[in-house]
Amino acid sequence: MSEKNCFGIGIIGLGGRGSGLLDMLLNMDDIAVPAVCDLYEDRARQAADRVEASGRPRPLQTLDYRDVLACPDVDGVITPSSWTSHLEIMLAAMQAGKPVATEVGGATSVQECWDLVHAAKATDVPCMMLENCCYGREEMALLNMVRQGVFGELIHCQGGYEHDLRAEVARGLENRHYRFLNYQHRNGDIYPTHALGPIAKMLDINRGNRFVSLASFPTKKRGLKEWASANLDADHAANQTWFNQADVVTTVLTCARGETVVLTHDTTLPRPYSRGGRVQGTRGIWMEDNRSIYLEGSSPNDSWEPFAPYLETYDHPLWQKSDVANYQAGHGGMDYLVLRAFIEPLMQGFKQMPIDVWDVATWMAVTPLSEESVALGGQPVAFPDFTNGSWICRQIAPDHRYSLD
Amino acid sequence: MSEKNCFGIGIIGLGGRGSGLLDMLLNMDDIAVPAVCDLYEDRARQAADRVEASGRPRPLQTLDYRDVLACPDVDGVITPSSWTSHLEIMLAAMQAGKPVATEVGGATSVQECWDLVHAAKATDVPCMMLENCCYGREEMALLNMVRQGVFGELIHCQGGYEHDLRAEVARGLENRHYRFLNYQHRNGDIYPTHALGPIAKMLDINRGNRFVSLASFPTKKRGLKEWASANLDADHAANQTWFNQADVVTTVLTCARGETVVLTHDTTLPRPYSRGGRVQGTRGIWMEDNRSIYLEGSSPNDSWEPFAPYLETYDHPLWQKSDVANYQAGHGGMDYLVLRAFIEPLMQGFKQMPIDVWDVATWMAVTPLSEESVALGGQPVAFPDFTNGSWICRQIAPDHRYSLD
Repeated sequence: MSEKNCFGIGIIGLGGRGSGLLDMLLNMDDIAVPAVCDLYEDRARQAADRVEASGRPRPLQTLDYRDVLACPDVDGVITPSSWTSHLEIMLAAMQAGKPVATEVGGATSVQECWDLVHAAKATDVPCMMLENCCYGREEMALLNMVRQGVFGELIHCQGGYEHDLRAEVARGLENRHYRFLNYQHRNGDIYPTHALGPIAKMLDINRGNRFVSLASFPTKKRGLKEWASANLDADHAANQTWFNQADVVTTVLTCARGETVVLTHDTTLPRPYSRGGRVQGTRGIWMEDNRSIYLEGSSPNDSWEPFAPYLETYDHPLWQKSDVANYQAGHGGMDYLVLRAFIEPLMQGFKQMPIDVWDVATWMAVTPLSEESVALGGQPVAFPDFTNGSWICRQIAPDHRYSLD
Repeated sequence: MSEKNCFGIGIIGLGGRGSGLLDMLLNMDDIAVPAVCDLYEDRARQAADRVEASGRPRPLQTLDYRDVLACPDVDGVITPSSWTSHLEIMLAAMQAGKPVATEVGGATSVQECWDLVHAAKATDVPCMMLENCCYGREEMALLNMVRQGVFGELIHCQGGYEHDLRAEVARGLENRHYRFLNYQHRNGDIYPTHALGPIAKMLDINRGNRFVSLASFPTKKRGLKEWASANLDADHAANQTWFNQADVVTTVLTCARGETVVLTHDTTLPRPYSRGGRVQGTRGIWMEDNRSIYLEGSSPNDSWEPFAPYLETYDHPLWQKSDVANYQAGHGGMDYLVLRAFIEPLMQGFKQMPIDVWDVATWMAVTPLSEESVALGGQPVAFPDFTNGSWICRQIAPDHRYSLD
């Protein structure tokens, strides 16, 4: 494909995540990268160097994301920028007529989620979230199973972001990572979407169901301070401040159809990584932490079965494509799939994103709602209906192979 | 030991559980059973027959528990009666001067928990809960580990009663089991103590820590109705009513010292049994569902280790006694241990129970508080301080080998 026929991606934010996404994009023959942006000049320059080294023209290199949005060769934008900038950039992109996909993270206020929904209506420009876990092999197989009724009627789901990030957070300032300041100032489920995204799809959120309330409960804060004290100099920034973010935040969401969802944000204690998944219905239950499933009538009485054979049986067609295997570097392939899920529908002229503006607004709103509930001592807060009632009868006909509907 | 020197246990309630406890008591040489009581004459008679068949004198057999309390040969009372009668009977026993141990279950109101505390103060008669899981081998090893600081400072715990009881609940009326009526009328964590008891001990509740709030979130109710519809006649009682109890109730407790506890009551969906345990501190985490532990510094990086070797290392001395092995029929020995934990201190003249009146009041109060929170849409409710402030400086010197302090 000639450069001219390629889909032009502008990248705003070139830290660790943006850099990884750039590598992946540069491995795609049908992708051009006409513009790169970061607040740090060295990052933008290194990205431009890599684009050039890939045999593509040297891109526009800028510190101001508005330059990316103004670039005529940019057909779509991705924002692996800091959490607190995602929605500002998305809004600006949509107003500039550029389809935009945000990296994961929560919002800073419920209002900016509304602003996103209003911008989508006003501009008719697609937006999406690059929630890679929605395209995880296990998550997609489970979605398949849920849609086929294997679990019966869903009753309860759990998930989490359970990831020991003490070193990354405490060393955030020298590594120019926004986590330090977020953990210093905020308290709530500040990173909900890896678990929530796949669960929201399984529960038909905004498509016949919606979240109606949320309550969050933080623990005390010990992990970061203990780690910094044991591993960093006394005058290190992490030893010269307090962190407001709780070690564990438990969040309970209730749904209009009567399901509950329990989310766990657990990132400053020593532990193996887990997304803590649990999907439970009237016919059975799956759990991530024991890699097991129990289905009434087929599993041995009162005994877990290994999930692996079910993953084979219910593997999603997208995962059986040969091209996924070529990109398994990106969290085992799901990073590739979620990027293609944004790009390919646009290349084919579709405006309906597999993770759409209502998904993005809903998933990102969990963070400020969680902060509100924490501030109110665990009081449940009402979950906004960003669809203004259309969730009741909204049914989406999948128009491309990346659809999660 | 002659009958005269035996400790005389009166049993009030001889359903399935009472009958099992009776068998266990009849296997103990130092126990007499001078009185048995049930609301159903056949149950009381069969129990009396079994006492007689064991070579002991035929006991007083009655339908009125007050007869048991008035019996001079009764040195202590146990109440494997219905959930809603536990506290009434305990109060009456204490007022009659009889030490009493209740079987597990929640209270019906917070007030009756206060009444229990007041009765303990007024009468100075010991009371206890036969929370067998506090004497589970795994739970006791974990308590050992917590006390030795293996997990560092505790931050977060989880537990549950996750037990498919659909058949038992739906067939409750014909089996004269109180669960049917409780599930028909109530909604909340109506059976919290198997998970909560061991966790409360680990968290020093009422001994330097206390629960300060509780919030509960129910799901819709599908499991019982679906099961009854598929397995029972259309005119069966379970098909002629609705059940109010949610399939899954998630309860979050917060502690004065800053820990959170998440409890799951999950008894009307198909699933393998679990108490869903999780103990997490600043140095590591244990999980029941994957039978694993991770301890910083000793476990392989970011990897779970099997818990079994730790159970060996930290096995509690009580579990190394040869006499436990003789009674492994009762849930693997813990039923034996919890009965002895009630009886032996009393035989030795101790009044301090290993699970004391403040524990009993606190653990049982979870049920009405949970029902209140459910009724209020998940609003957190304040947890009463049954110690009236003495939790702040309360330290208990263990005075017998069954101590959990």
